[in-house]
Amino acid sequence: MSGAHEQKAPLGVAAIGYAFMGKAHSQAWRNVAAYFDVPAVEQRVLVGRDSEQVAEAAARYGWAESATDWREVIARDDVQIVDICAPGWLHAEIAIAALEAGKHVLVEKPLANSMAESERMVAAAQAARARGVQSMVGFNYRRVPALAFAKQLIADGRLGAVREVRASYLQDWLADEDSPMTWRLRKETAGSGALGDIASHAIDQVQFLLGDTVTEVSGRLHTFVGQRPGPSGVEDVTVDDAAWATLSLAGGAVASVEVSRVALGRKNSLRIEVYGSAGALTFDLERLNELEFLDGAVPVAEQGFRRIVVTEPEHPYVGAWWPQGHVIGWEHTFTHQIRDFLLAIRDGAAPSPSFEEGLQVQRVLAAVEESAAAKSTIVQL
Amino acid sequence: MSGAHEQKAPLGVAAIGYAFMGKAHSQAWRNVAAYFDVPAVEQRVLVGRDSEQVAEAAARYGWAESATDWREVIARDDVQIVDICAPGWLHAEIAIAALEAGKHVLVEKPLANSMAESERMVAAAQAARARGVQSMVGFNYRRVPALAFAKQLIADGRLGAVREVRASYLQDWLADEDSPMTWRLRKETAGSGALGDIASHAIDQVQFLLGDTVTEVSGRLHTFVGQRPGPSGVEDVTVDDAAWATLSLAGGAVASVEVSRVALGRKNSLRIEVYGSAGALTFDLERLNELEFLDGAVPVAEQGFRRIVVTEPEHPYVGAWWPQGHVIGWEHTFTHQIRDFLLAIRDGAAPSPSFEEGLQVQRVLAAVEESAAAKSTIVQL
Amino acid sequence: MSGAHEQKAPLGVAAIGYAFMGKAHSQAWRNVAAYFDVPAVEQRVLVGRDSEQVAEAAARYGWAESATDWREVIARDDVQIVDICAPGWLHAEIAIAALEAGKHVLVEKPLANSMAESERMVAAAQAARARGVQSMVGFNYRRVPALAFAKQLIADGRLGAVREVRASYLQDWLADEDSPMTWRLRKETAGSGALGDIASHAIDQVQFLLGDTVTEVSGRLHTFVGQRPGPSGVEDVTVDDAAWATLSLAGGAVASVEVSRVALGRKNSLRIEVYGSAGALTFDLERLNELEFLDGAVPVAEQGFRRIVVTEPEHPYVGAWWPQGHVIGWEHTFTHQIRDFLLAIRDGAAPSPSFEEGLQVQRVLAAVEESAAAKSTIVQL
Amino acid sequence: MSGAHEQKAPLGVAAIGYAFMGKAHSQAWRNVAAYFDVPAVEQRVLVGRDSEQVAEAAARYGWAESATDWREVIARDDVQIVDICAPGWLHAEIAIAALEAGKHVLVEKPLANSMAESERMVAAAQAARARGVQSMVGFNYRRVPALAFAKQLIADGRLGAVREVRASYLQDWLADEDSPMTWRLRKETAGSGALGDIASHAIDQVQFLLGDTVTEVSGRLHTFVGQRPGPSGVEDVTVDDAAWATLSLAGGAVASVEVSRVALGRKNSLRIEVYGSAGALTFDLERLNELEFLDGAVPVAEQGFRRIVVTEPEHPYVGAWWPQGHVIGWEHTFTHQIRDFLLAIRDGAAPSPSFEEGLQVQRVLAAVEESAAAKSTIVQL
Repeated sequence: MSGAHEQKAPLGVAAIGYAFMGKAHSQAWRNVAAYFDVPAVEQRVLVGRDSEQVAEAAARYGWAESATDWREVIARDDVQIVDICAPGWLHAEIAIAALEAGKHVLVEKPLANSMAESERMVAAAQAARARGVQSMVGFNYRRVPALAFAKQLIADGRLGAVREVRASYLQDWLADEDSPMTWRLRKETAGSGALGDIASHAIDQVQFLLGDTVTEVSGRLHTFVGQRPGPSGVEDVTVDDAAWATLSLAGGAVASVEVSRVALGRKNSLRIEVYGSAGALTFDLERLNELEFLDGAVPVAEQGFRRIVVTEPEHPYVGAWWPQGHVIGWEHTFTHQIRDFLLAIRDGAAPSPSFEEGLQVQRVLAAVEESAAAKSTIVQL
Repeated sequence: MSGAHEQKAPLGVAAIGYAFMGKAHSQAWRNVAAYFDVPAVEQRVLVGRDSEQVAEAAARYGWAESATDWREVIARDDVQIVDICAPGWLHAEIAIAALEAGKHVLVEKPLANSMAESERMVAAAQAARARGVQSMVGFNYRRVPALAFAKQLIADGRLGAVREVRASYLQDWLADEDSPMTWRLRKETAGSGALGDIASHAIDQVQFLLGDTVTEVSGRLHTFVGQRPGPSGVEDVTVDDAAWATLSLAGGAVASVEVSRVALGRKNSLRIEVYGSAGALTFDLERLNELEFLDGAVPVAEQGFRRIVVTEPEHPYVGAWWPQGHVIGWEHTFTHQIRDFLLAIRDGAAPSPSFEEGLQVQRVLAAVEESAAAKSTIVQL
Repeated sequence: MSGAHEQKAPLGVAAIGYAFMGKAHSQAWRNVAAYFDVPAVEQRVLVGRDSEQVAEAAARYGWAESATDWREVIARDDVQIVDICAPGWLHAEIAIAALEAGKHVLVEKPLANSMAESERMVAAAQAARARGVQSMVGFNYRRVPALAFAKQLIADGRLGAVREVRASYLQDWLADEDSPMTWRLRKETAGSGALGDIASHAIDQVQFLLGDTVTEVSGRLHTFVGQRPGPSGVEDVTVDDAAWATLSLAGGAVASVEVSRVALGRKNSLRIEVYGSAGALTFDLERLNELEFLDGAVPVAEQGFRRIVVTEPEHPYVGAWWPQGHVIGWEHTFTHQIRDFLLAIRDGAAPSPSFEEGLQVQRVLAAVEESAAAKSTIVQL
Repeated sequence: MSGAHEQKAPLGVAAIGYAFMGKAHSQAWRNVAAYFDVPAVEQRVLVGRDSEQVAEAAARYGWAESATDWREVIARDDVQIVDICAPGWLHAEIAIAALEAGKHVLVEKPLANSMAESERMVAAAQAARARGVQSMVGFNYRRVPALAFAKQLIADGRLGAVREVRASYLQDWLADEDSPMTWRLRKETAGSGALGDIASHAIDQVQFLLGDTVTEVSGRLHTFVGQRPGPSGVEDVTVDDAAWATLSLAGGAVASVEVSRVALGRKNSLRIEVYGSAGALTFDLERLNELEFLDGAVPVAEQGFRRIVVTEPEHPYVGAWWPQGHVIGWEHTFTHQIRDFLLAIRDGAAPSPSFEEGLQVQRVLAAVEESAAAKSTIVQL
């Protein structure tokens, strides 16, 4: 059956997962219509494994019902949208089943834990798209107003030819070596460490901002804290806690990427610097309402990075919120994402980032791993 | 009748006003229970003068119904809380009626446009409180986590004896002299200009942070753009667009206050600096997730203002939201305010800031006006 | 005899005082010709009261000789310039004698400790000027490249009509209440405290940047630490350690000034913010190589305070130093001052700031004191 | 013959080169004794190729004489110190001859243009040292007070085990693609581009701060502007204008390095971030009087990067200058360098960084080039 955009009835949404991402997506579903003109939606059902906990989360986050079997839920006629916030190893199975059931699918990043899964998801998305069923991967930072505005400036040529990008994503929640073992630190469950979790965001941003594609990669992975206390004694950490990469882009730019979960003092610091022949930009997610822009067209004596408070009606998304200078929070990257997802569904258009774009990020991540395993030797994509 | 805290049934809320403040308060009512353990509430009715517009706003912001007559609404048995977001000149009448009807009342700041009204409101609040009916004035910036944390540090003696406070609230939405005349620029409707609108916040913060009371005031008011285009020709602006004051506090500190709506480039910049004998603090509302703290107990070679990203579980309010470094927005000052209001109702306790505290701010504002009219000569409170 | 500008022989310089200011002026005399094309000068003699210490200082700071009697020194034929770094209470006597002896005079700020002295100095300077003998008062911050550039931007109309100035000068060297008594804390020797010492700089900057004159003043003085340990027991501090003022300027701007020596964590922070109808500026002496400029002519979505690193050849003074981005230090405000003083002597022109300009600052300081003594009531100048 | 430290007569200094570095070194020689207690020195002779220009520079920068033949100068009995500011390709020849002539030698970085030259210089330095003749390579940024203080903090264990270092040195003087060809852009004269010029500083800092040695390297070089206008038509640029490297250190840390001369808007921005298990540091040469320090020993709610204004008497070097908060300039890194060089000569001790340390940096640079030529594959040192 076809997409939901002809419908007058509200779109029914099912969300799978109620932890960190489920909480963040729920707030977006609960609030999007208060700020944006989007098709009507209803938070129909929240899905989780523990029936008691998911019921409590559903009540708290505004869902009409809860359930424990995602297969039953995606079969429901009153569900038109499936929002997958489950761990990465479940993405492929659920997303493919949902798309085949004719449901629009939003899946959290990274697309999947493996290239094989990612490729199957792309195939399913392409088939579904032909039937008017849409899909999107949740690189929510594309919807930070400052970064969306940065992309506009670059696309408008305000930076000239982009030469260098410096992207880093530094956190410190694993800086303490006594911080305990979790599934996120085992390769079999997490796929990778900082690489998949946060380098994926940094790499997506590089490609998004430049509207360009990575063509070759040199990479390195490292685990600074190699063992951590587990429930039954000390365990080996089998994923990276920091990663480095140098990326070539098709258009000639070079990007460096550095990510870490042990960078003490950095809480959630995705920093991006873009240097072009005619301008430059910097951004830090810890100050997500700000963008620094240097305009090379200004006389040199007056040049400088200007701190733009990205809260003007002219800026992307943010006019829907509050008057100038009244800053928004991290959570609204999800609100904006769902706004764009819903508008794409309404218009029968393919939302971006598509699964194909998610797969392209996975390719870069895989190349970083391949290079890291081969003494950082450059890998072509 | 008594307070609502014994009730098991949800507390019914009526909000009066659906413009800027109504929108902000609505999001708080819609979301508070998703993040905080508060008594159950229901957004029963939104009240406004234009029946069509208020109906649309009610639908958008999550209210079950809309209405145009606030008197009818405060008489309803299914309404236990009245949230007043109407313009200042209506505060007294509505608040007093609601309190007399046994409804808990939250009223936006400033408490009222005149001292006389403010005093009547305080009397009504005191009478109601004796009957278990609570009231609160909406100085929402007390619930910025960084400022609540600042207050803790000061109360814990980390700054020693506070000597100087520098408070400024700078905006630029009236910087353009062609910006048109509005009711906010006429004394008869607005009471005052930047003074009542934003100096009230700055003054409340000074008293809140220090836990102290202003005892004398020297003030000055100025209107830089004296005429503006109105619908039928040029009109005189009859309120201040900037104000300055020097305040003495009972405990010996001196505070300077400067506010402006014509400070080009400042969007919503409430900046506060506090200097004590043992430490210092700085804050800027445009970066509301951050607090700068200098600890004088540290060896001098290591002293410096440290930028604390106020997003840790240990910080006030913010543990309910997202992991560290995931910043929140301006709007959640209202969410926190309603959380505290609801908890006070549940506990039968008087929430703060009380109407008395709102009146104390009004007294300072009136003293600034009095001093300004008398060549800045100091006025005792 | 006449000014030195026809001479081919080097100008002989005598400096009086070898403490903090003497050290700073010495480096300027020692280095100015290495960077700027100025008339040849020779550091002939350094004068101080203690013959041994002044001899050592002279050797260290590059002076050919030392002496203890300033009257003898200003009588010497090989001295054409007298640079007065002695304490304020000696300024008038030395400066007037030197001018009458036909010597060009540079005197440290503030011009003098009293209005009467200042007025006599102005009379002497006017008489000397008629004979080609120049004089200057050392408001060295006029020669910070960033502030000189700020003045250019304002003079060029880039800020439009200036409305508000916020000037503060915060230090913390007296924050510790156990810091001992000194002559600087006694009214009879120091004249005033933070007011004369640092508010003088702030007030001079306001008038300098705007090219305007203060016409009325409301002021306040305060002493937070009223007693300090002296050599023979606890003594009363008889000068202010903090001061506040609101200033009206002839052109319609309003400036606030706040200075303190007890603002813990602020080392030498002269901060200036200027808000105009078309642009805005901010500056902090602790980052003296930077100027923040907001250009209101830029589309609003791109507006922001831009951090200009003031080290380009196009910027005032700084092209003589190092390549861009190689920052200069505080001391070179004196080097630039002496460069301009020497060029004025060479050209037979009156250097700025003149003694008249120094007197104008004294008038404002006196008005602050007068207002402070009269409950902050506005005083007209 | 032996070192000069027993002498009572002033040490005679000859400097070779009077361009950018010669000007900077001259100011250090001219001023060092005014601030530090060092052996007496005399600026005897400045050497350059153009007799007229060098004579003018000598007069301007305080040298007693000028000369054009460095061989004659290093043979003079009244010269005890040779300060080499000539281009890199001359370093080896002059330094070796001077050391053999018994002169103490200070040579600008990088040590030489090739490994072979560097090794011969080290051999000469070792032989001379045995005879009491000292040598030093001019990595002047070791003498930035903030970086010297950073090293202290790290050495004192305040950062715990250092894990990650992020070092970048970004400039923009070649950002304009019409900027003309110079000898610095030809491999035969410059050796390399940004790599030797500025990555050398970044790499030296990494090893200096950590007191550690690089053991393996992955590198990349790139030339964004491949052709530039020369005097007789367009020429190929044969050196890099940007470089990237990932470095392993013996102690387990990983450092990333990125340098560029085309990073628009960055004037002279050597930025360093150091993340350890117990603390973190950041620094930017454009704000060289500041160090940011995060102390992980502080309770997490109070942690933050604190901006230390490195101008206290307790801080390295800076107590000799001005009172707190009175910032110093870039040039004084050279003054401090010469102070330490002179003290080492006085004490008969080997100054640091030695030629061996300079050689170690050269080895890392060579490894970066080797890796870059081999698809970024890791090279062991």
